[in-house]
Amino acid sequence: VDDRKVTVDSLILGALRTTPDGVSGIDLSSKLGLTRAAVWAHIEELRRLGYEISASPHQGYRLLGSPDRLNPDDLMCRLTSTRFIGKDIRVFQKTDSTNDIVGQLAREGVPEGVVVFAESQAAGRGRLGRRWRSPEGKGLWFSILLRPEMPLEFATQCTIAAAVAIVNCAETILGERPEIKWPNDVLFDGKKIAGVLTEMDAELDRINHVVLGIGLNVNFDQKDFPEELRGAASSLKEIAGKSVNRMDLAEQLLAELDRMYSRVRDGHFTQIANQWALDCSTVGRFVRVSQGDTMIEGHAEMLDESGALLMRDQNGRINRVMGGEVQVLNSDELRKSRNTGRE
Amino acid sequence: VDDRKVTVDSLILGALRTTPDGVSGIDLSSKLGLTRAAVWAHIEELRRLGYEISASPHQGYRLLGSPDRLNPDDLMCRLTSTRFIGKDIRVFQKTDSTNDIVGQLAREGVPEGVVVFAESQAAGRGRLGRRWRSPEGKGLWFSILLRPEMPLEFATQCTIAAAVAIVNCAETILGERPEIKWPNDVLFDGKKIAGVLTEMDAELDRINHVVLGIGLNVNFDQKDFPEELRGAASSLKEIAGKSVNRMDLAEQLLAELDRMYSRVRDGHFTQIANQWALDCSTVGRFVRVSQGDTMIEGHAEMLDESGALLMRDQNGRINRVMGGEVQVLNSDELRKSRNTGRE
Repeated sequence: VDDRKVTVDSLILGALRTTPDGVSGIDLSSKLGLTRAAVWAHIEELRRLGYEISASPHQGYRLLGSPDRLNPDDLMCRLTSTRFIGKDIRVFQKTDSTNDIVGQLAREGVPEGVVVFAESQAAGRGRLGRRWRSPEGKGLWFSILLRPEMPLEFATQCTIAAAVAIVNCAETILGERPEIKWPNDVLFDGKKIAGVLTEMDAELDRINHVVLGIGLNVNFDQKDFPEELRGAASSLKEIAGKSVNRMDLAEQLLAELDRMYSRVRDGHFTQIANQWALDCSTVGRFVRVSQGDTMIEGHAEMLDESGALLMRDQNGRINRVMGGEVQVLNSDELRKSRNTGRE
Repeated sequence: VDDRKVTVDSLILGALRTTPDGVSGIDLSSKLGLTRAAVWAHIEELRRLGYEISASPHQGYRLLGSPDRLNPDDLMCRLTSTRFIGKDIRVFQKTDSTNDIVGQLAREGVPEGVVVFAESQAAGRGRLGRRWRSPEGKGLWFSILLRPEMPLEFATQCTIAAAVAIVNCAETILGERPEIKWPNDVLFDGKKIAGVLTEMDAELDRINHVVLGIGLNVNFDQKDFPEELRGAASSLKEIAGKSVNRMDLAEQLLAELDRMYSRVRDGHFTQIANQWALDCSTVGRFVRVSQGDTMIEGHAEMLDESGALLMRDQNGRINRVMGGEVQVLNSDELRKSRNTGRE
């Protein structure tokens, strides 16, 4: 028994998508247990939502085009085989922060895997309380509820799995893999295209729930970014040289996130960690990590099995870093840092 | 400038408590900027709440007795010098869980240090989702909001500080120190008298807020415990052989919690950790720790600086344990465990 939330619109869109040559009104009405008039009413509703659906006596209903708007019914009908993620999908036209909405749903007892998208966020958050710009139509801004009854380290594994899923998905569009800036930013040519904000509700030794927030810059042009981000941020459109269909992308990304999360749940995190380590441009560089008041500098040697960054300082001591703000040091800064250390 | 929430009742009770020989209506009305009739009305209100207040032309108002009920104004007037905890105190007659209330307040942006008591909880929680019995009048059931912008390890430090505060406070009543069962149960003669449930809202590398929930069995008799807890739980009354005034205890405990939390905030956790290690009866024993599906057995060697338990297994390897369910092994179990290990 599957606990997916299935709607009539979702079933109709599913039928239209699986039979691109057209499906008759009779077939639809018998399949759905609805009158032909009711089917017609739903088709009209979908048309109002921007779906181009032709109707002819010969071919029946045919889906000719979809709007560039996130539609939960449409996503549901495309994601019928995920194990955890997307059995319940909700889309807000505008909200403060999808992470807050999912946190609220979590406290109300909504099951694992609910996904909340917003066409735009008024107060989207990045890590460490920073603002995340999320204007309408330019990206995918969404949050996923996960409920792994596991120790806290598991939240890091979920985050890493999400970063790898984003990179995998971006690669299919760009033909090239973006890089991961530790712990969870996705960059292309040094410019940020996506980020993951993981928030959790936990006891000291057990996760109650994790909210995985993802922001992916899809159809930004450089002029769409605020001045202070220009040169530091990019988008799939800018890199690919053409607009990307956000619904197709959302479908692919949720399916990939489900695949990666399933691996984590099945205890196969190591596979993901290995891929992450290959993608992580932070490893092998000299970096400075700031955490609140403290700062550590050193050579990012490798990642450990829980996703922590192992840094070797100039005394050869290995520091295990769980998070913080990472800056890759260039040769000047490095020289300065070393001289300071020697004094 | 102090951000304490001060009420008229709190000021009147404060004046009555600091001048046990009596304070005149004139003094009170000039001190509070109220008419004598208004002062009288507040005195009447306090009497209705169960405060015995005498009034005479000679001695003015005198506080003769207090009810065995938690009163936020009374607690506020007794706790005027805390740094963090108790600047805002709220008492519910009955609620599901004070941790849930404080979590809600946290999301509404209430400042650090708010304390929420309940005379009884309908769905009090212990660690790992277990039920915590919290009937009316028998104990102190309360939660404190902390907002340390620190890495996650800090939540463990707060918990340990709370456990030591409870032990310190219980010692003044019992004349003997209870023991701590790692990580955060307080036991006397092997019977549980208090527990700490720490819940947090966090990013991977930063705490958003911590809710410190404390349950302390004060005036239970053995017959007040449900059958399955008899012999496993006890109370201050049972050990001391007499009832304990819950308001006095709440005052002392909040003051002590503030003192311990201040030390943690000031970076002096080590002092607390040392005391904790002395109180912790788990160290030096052979124990089994269960965490979800996994189980570790070994000798509890010591606590590390972050509060984790370092366990030596039979191969001499040290395991660092952050949480879980701890069971001290008796000699039979230990022999069995060793034999299994050798096969």
